[in-house]
Amino acid sequence: MSAPRPRAAILSVGSELLLGDLTDTNATWMSVRLRERGVAVLHHLAVGDDLDAIVAAVRWLAGRVDLVVVGGGLGPTSDDLTREALAAATGRPLEHREELEEAILARFVAAGRPMAPRNRRQARVPTGATAWPPAGTAPAFAVPLDVDGPGGAREVQLVALPGVPWEARELWDDAVGSRLDALGATGATVTRTVRVVGRGESDVAAVVEPLLADDPEVTLAFLARRRAVHVRLTATGADVAGARARTQPAVDAVVAALGAAVVGVDEDDLEAVVLRRLAARGETLATAESATAGAIAARLAEVPGASRVLVGGVVVYADAAKARLAGLEPDLVAREGAVSAPVTAALARAARDRTGADWGLAVTGVAGPGPVVAPDGTELPPGTAHWAVCGPDGEVVTEGRRLTGDRPAVRERLGSAALDLLRRVLDGAVGSA
Amino acid sequence: MSAPRPRAAILSVGSELLLGDLTDTNATWMSVRLRERGVAVLHHLAVGDDLDAIVAAVRWLAGRVDLVVVGGGLGPTSDDLTREALAAATGRPLEHREELEEAILARFVAAGRPMAPRNRRQARVPTGATAWPPAGTAPAFAVPLDVDGPGGAREVQLVALPGVPWEARELWDDAVGSRLDALGATGATVTRTVRVVGRGESDVAAVVEPLLADDPEVTLAFLARRRAVHVRLTATGADVAGARARTQPAVDAVVAALGAAVVGVDEDDLEAVVLRRLAARGETLATAESATAGAIAARLAEVPGASRVLVGGVVVYADAAKARLAGLEPDLVAREGAVSAPVTAALARAARDRTGADWGLAVTGVAGPGPVVAPDGTELPPGTAHWAVCGPDGEVVTEGRRLTGDRPAVRERLGSAALDLLRRVLDGAVGSA
Repeated sequence: MSAPRPRAAILSVGSELLLGDLTDTNATWMSVRLRERGVAVLHHLAVGDDLDAIVAAVRWLAGRVDLVVVGGGLGPTSDDLTREALAAATGRPLEHREELEEAILARFVAAGRPMAPRNRRQARVPTGATAWPPAGTAPAFAVPLDVDGPGGAREVQLVALPGVPWEARELWDDAVGSRLDALGATGATVTRTVRVVGRGESDVAAVVEPLLADDPEVTLAFLARRRAVHVRLTATGADVAGARARTQPAVDAVVAALGAAVVGVDEDDLEAVVLRRLAARGETLATAESATAGAIAARLAEVPGASRVLVGGVVVYADAAKARLAGLEPDLVAREGAVSAPVTAALARAARDRTGADWGLAVTGVAGPGPVVAPDGTELPPGTAHWAVCGPDGEVVTEGRRLTGDRPAVRERLGSAALDLLRRVLDGAVGSA
Repeated sequence: MSAPRPRAAILSVGSELLLGDLTDTNATWMSVRLRERGVAVLHHLAVGDDLDAIVAAVRWLAGRVDLVVVGGGLGPTSDDLTREALAAATGRPLEHREELEEAILARFVAAGRPMAPRNRRQARVPTGATAWPPAGTAPAFAVPLDVDGPGGAREVQLVALPGVPWEARELWDDAVGSRLDALGATGATVTRTVRVVGRGESDVAAVVEPLLADDPEVTLAFLARRRAVHVRLTATGADVAGARARTQPAVDAVVAALGAAVVGVDEDDLEAVVLRRLAARGETLATAESATAGAIAARLAEVPGASRVLVGGVVVYADAAKARLAGLEPDLVAREGAVSAPVTAALARAARDRTGADWGLAVTGVAGPGPVVAPDGTELPPGTAHWAVCGPDGEVVTEGRRLTGDRPAVRERLGSAALDLLRRVLDGAVGSA
């Protein structure tokens, strides 16, 4: 890139952030969007619903960047002070815009609700501001601020967006995108994600870091999530295609080095990959879940179109359900214990047989917080878990180990372990499917 | 409170925040802790791994507050610059502390790993700083900064904590708590939460706001979550018991005004309330889930001890599963449609009968993104949903309406609607249980 990278800051207005009632996920989303346009985000700053604090924050940030995106404080109440603060910071008194009031009124009419008098406040913007009609009831606007600096006077772009996430996202391209065009943000940054299951972050880093030690164009980062470790590869280019092309050799090298531990690249998560492979084979899946109690089926059903593959399943939380819903011999559970490889294998077979699905997937485990006593008197600590897959030929593959983390983490990791076993069986990397 | 409230800011150091790779949940957690001690948090600020940016941020914040908690940038690599930045900001060069190096080494010995030479960097702190041995490998430290202001010179406390959440939490009381004691933060703030299901935020606000209009001691806030609307009532007192006592009349008034729409107070969410009422009656529950595909059972199983009540259930995602796992007549589904009140009622009855549980809970719905065509040819848009409860006497109560939001929101709201119907039936507010 030839032009210098534009610099931006995100200012979030709202006392609920400072009280700890709300986490600022807007700043995260906006940062990703700005980064994709090649913009360097230098600061996130949160301030309360206080006029002086907002003005001071705008002035400090404007001295350091080219663009300040202000989120929140555009509602209809007296606590919503972003309009007044940007008017004060820029020395441009608020003016009422008739066309904005009409656009706000139209939103109320469409929702079949009367517009309260206080919503007229939302039609006010600093004099001369560029404004966009609302997605909800708050219009967005942009206004320039002249800043004196060591290199002489320069113009900083201020953009005000609503704090409600979907409203901000809907207005983003118009309000922020247009400012980025004006700032000459023509570069593009692309981040590719290689998703890895079944290996720890440091183990993955030890394999991947040496591969990219000599590539100054690709930035490497690792993110350890409950469901997977993400290897993130970032490159910048003149446009999206160029940036993407720069990442490709690195993506290929990482995928080759990690082999079967790679679940997918970019948006390809474990659920999507498993559903797509089964759909391609024209095969269906059913579940039998003890410790996860339906969470695996629910994860699969998060994916639109899951109904082509997911038939359903049984939640066999209590031992009574293992007998009544999965038809397990009470003797088997009494002899082997509810958390055991033989019971898990029997559940995987039952999931398949009872639904007529081609594949059955089952889990048992000790989610915690306390241990469970096995029939032989040994204590199974929290995290003890088994998972099993039954294939179209009736053959069952079982795995098990002790998973780390608290109760929610164990339940989520158990779901990932089971889905990953199914993925590896489908790939022929495990068992005889 | 007689003394003025101490003011604080949270400075988070780490480029991953500005790249959008990570959301700053540390700032949320710290804000809650500070608020409980009666501290006013005025700013959250995030900066990248850049020495000048960290120094500028510390100086700007120190001009506005009494305490700056700096999170992150204490690792062993050259990107970890918080130590250097606080040394520069305070004019106190870094010094090596032998006792900190020994504490770091002890952590490595305990983990059975060798200590790398670069970890010695973590034993360096600004001259004269108070330091605490690490929870992970990064010690925390505190150092004062003299600031000139309109009222003359004053001392601002800077505290550096690791960015890893569990490490920061473990060091919090020692490092930040001790500074708050020194700042005279003796007050306490308590927030109570009244959880409301089945009514919208503005509807709830219209009922609650007039109740508290004349109470200057209790601050009111509303949070609309997918699972519930939270009415938050906050008061400050000399200690936790005093602050809590001030909130109680407001909590009582809100609960009385909202009646059966109140699910619970404070930590009492819908899942916990339903499980507790069933446990008190010695009764059990089973589910039959179509659109939610196991998510309701999984939500219940998130609560430790759920196994006393939750037997299990069936996930009847495909129509074939509705027949095979729940025993529904294929005719019924063909005639009424899979998303219909009669099918949902039959599923609730099947959940109970097939498991031997006392209660059955069932849902059907169109999660989206596309519509579903009913047997009579009408299009059921996304959000169309039914839920039903079958009680110990076999009687079934069914409700239905169109839920708003995208696919994940519809699935979550459907689960809440069904659990809330069960709660109201258990309370005798609906049906004849």
